[in-house]
Amino acid sequence: MSAVHQYIHAGPFAMKRGVIHDPTFAYETWGELNAARDNAVLVLTGLSPSAHVASSPADPSTGWWEDMLGPDKPIDTSRYFVVCVNSLGSCFGSTGPASIDPTTGCHYRLSFPVLHVEDIARGGAAVLDHLGIAQLHTVLGASMGGMTALAFALIHPTRTRGLVSISAAARSQPFAIAIRSLQREMIRRDPAWQNGNYPFEQGPLTGMRLARKLGMITYRSAEEWTERFGRERAASAAPAEHPFGLDFEVESYLEAQAAKFAGRFDPNCYLYLSRAMDLFDVADHGGSLEIGFSRVRLERAMVIGVETDFLFPVEQQEQMALELKKQVRDVRFHRLASIQGHDAFLVDMDRFRPVVARYFQ
Amino acid sequence: MSAVHQYIHAGPFAMKRGVIHDPTFAYETWGELNAARDNAVLVLTGLSPSAHVASSPADPSTGWWEDMLGPDKPIDTSRYFVVCVNSLGSCFGSTGPASIDPTTGCHYRLSFPVLHVEDIARGGAAVLDHLGIAQLHTVLGASMGGMTALAFALIHPTRTRGLVSISAAARSQPFAIAIRSLQREMIRRDPAWQNGNYPFEQGPLTGMRLARKLGMITYRSAEEWTERFGRERAASAAPAEHPFGLDFEVESYLEAQAAKFAGRFDPNCYLYLSRAMDLFDVADHGGSLEIGFSRVRLERAMVIGVETDFLFPVEQQEQMALELKKQVRDVRFHRLASIQGHDAFLVDMDRFRPVVARYFQ
Repeated sequence: MSAVHQYIHAGPFAMKRGVIHDPTFAYETWGELNAARDNAVLVLTGLSPSAHVASSPADPSTGWWEDMLGPDKPIDTSRYFVVCVNSLGSCFGSTGPASIDPTTGCHYRLSFPVLHVEDIARGGAAVLDHLGIAQLHTVLGASMGGMTALAFALIHPTRTRGLVSISAAARSQPFAIAIRSLQREMIRRDPAWQNGNYPFEQGPLTGMRLARKLGMITYRSAEEWTERFGRERAASAAPAEHPFGLDFEVESYLEAQAAKFAGRFDPNCYLYLSRAMDLFDVADHGGSLEIGFSRVRLERAMVIGVETDFLFPVEQQEQMALELKKQVRDVRFHRLASIQGHDAFLVDMDRFRPVVARYFQ
Repeated sequence: MSAVHQYIHAGPFAMKRGVIHDPTFAYETWGELNAARDNAVLVLTGLSPSAHVASSPADPSTGWWEDMLGPDKPIDTSRYFVVCVNSLGSCFGSTGPASIDPTTGCHYRLSFPVLHVEDIARGGAAVLDHLGIAQLHTVLGASMGGMTALAFALIHPTRTRGLVSISAAARSQPFAIAIRSLQREMIRRDPAWQNGNYPFEQGPLTGMRLARKLGMITYRSAEEWTERFGRERAASAAPAEHPFGLDFEVESYLEAQAAKFAGRFDPNCYLYLSRAMDLFDVADHGGSLEIGFSRVRLERAMVIGVETDFLFPVEQQEQMALELKKQVRDVRFHRLASIQGHDAFLVDMDRFRPVVARYFQ
């Protein structure tokens, strides 16, 4: 899962609550930077994806947004130079809690500084410095990536002309905080977590599986699952024999999803990234949402929200669009009727593709 | 928490998937049965409450629906004889997995038969037999209690003239099943569960705490929590010192709620009752929802749903009311705008009291 390129930022890297040294940023690129150096798009990711947005000659495997990025696709790589950076704090090539601290020779684990979305945005900016990109055409992100894109536009206001925020928010509501806090607690309460000092080959798999299941529950919508699963019984259901096995198809689905994820993502990295979403608040940039948003210097912005998303409710995204309109000439807000909830941007491509394509035309 | 009365049903008691012997049913009563014996109301409860709906001379402590039941209250005990039975499978006086099986002398634990909502309804009917009540004025329940009330009306169609279902459903949607399945898994994955054989004084407290937190998250609504907690920081927050402590007030609230519940409810009983809700399906009574509902013989029914309830969505309850209308002359459906979600019937008394009062006038 390592990205195609690595940039090692030699020397100290200041985070909001600490300093790390010589961090690595894994990133991938698609397309070519033009002579004017004004066609760059930075893609920032949600909590769990790597920088592999889409296939490329360097890595032909299918990416997590394969339908969206490529030649003649909505983010058209025959026109744009696209960069995606694995988030600081993640575990797919960029430095995070599972990396070795060069000052101690030991893995960071819980000695990694408290992570903020702003730190992830600064990591993106460091890669742009390395690539010699002074200003972006657009910074784009979905979910945590949308928060990171917004943070980027706040702390580096002159470095991007455009912003695309998908299924994100200016800050997390207590409901979303409660869910993520519980996911983290499931991991921390797994005895195998060992206060963060688990052997990497044998971490808190049970906690990760439970956290992933709760994630999947909150990433979709009740409507979608009613259509998709109804009350279908699981193929493996044996209610009469085992008192608490799987009864319903929806339970088998969650089981399969959890098994896929649990061994693939470092638990401490998950904890750090999850909490970063809770801590993010545009109001921390000056004292209120209004003051925070007044710092952007964008020419264009697009905010996309999904009606069935209850983790990042569409009302919050409408509010973001309204605040941006006070500062930005060209703001588009799209309220999509997808039934796939928070995950719709990964699934409901028929609705998302044309909206994103229009922005980049 | 034991109820004021106990009825021991001597001999076998047939459940849907097994037989138990000499079960005890704990119950409380308020008011007096009239000479015609036609003023009895049976209250069935949600997963966690006891039979102590309201205070009485026999037990003056505050009940879980104190505002709703009593002299001159919406369920007016100067007019009605009200009975509430602790659910079969629960742990507040009625027989359940934490009780001793008289045939073995050991606690049932996981040898208790798979519990169905219909079994709980039959337990209510057994208490009515004991009290000499042939027919109820109304069977009433909220949440799991609403499912149980519906099951009662299906399997004992001539034993009640009225039905009140609050925030319940004719069957669970996959979304609700997924949440409850995950709650059960949190308990089962706690090593202290020991496949159900935990010492009663030292059960899977961590799993119970996590399950209760997820419960609380799904019992309320995002809107309510935004109003109530916003992004208030927890009094005990110490983000700089502990990397994964409590940051936000909403996390402290959940912590307090979980601590209150975890030691108070038997984990195996929780597992059985939770799964009973998943398994309930009116369509099991004949092959389809339509055939199932055609079995009721009610004179009146009232269905109350709450717009912000995402565990038992109001659309499901509207559907229940529509099905009942095909059979029952007088059906009222109330769609309440409470922001307290599934728990509104316990909290938003200003909205619920008049609706229930009108039914019983």
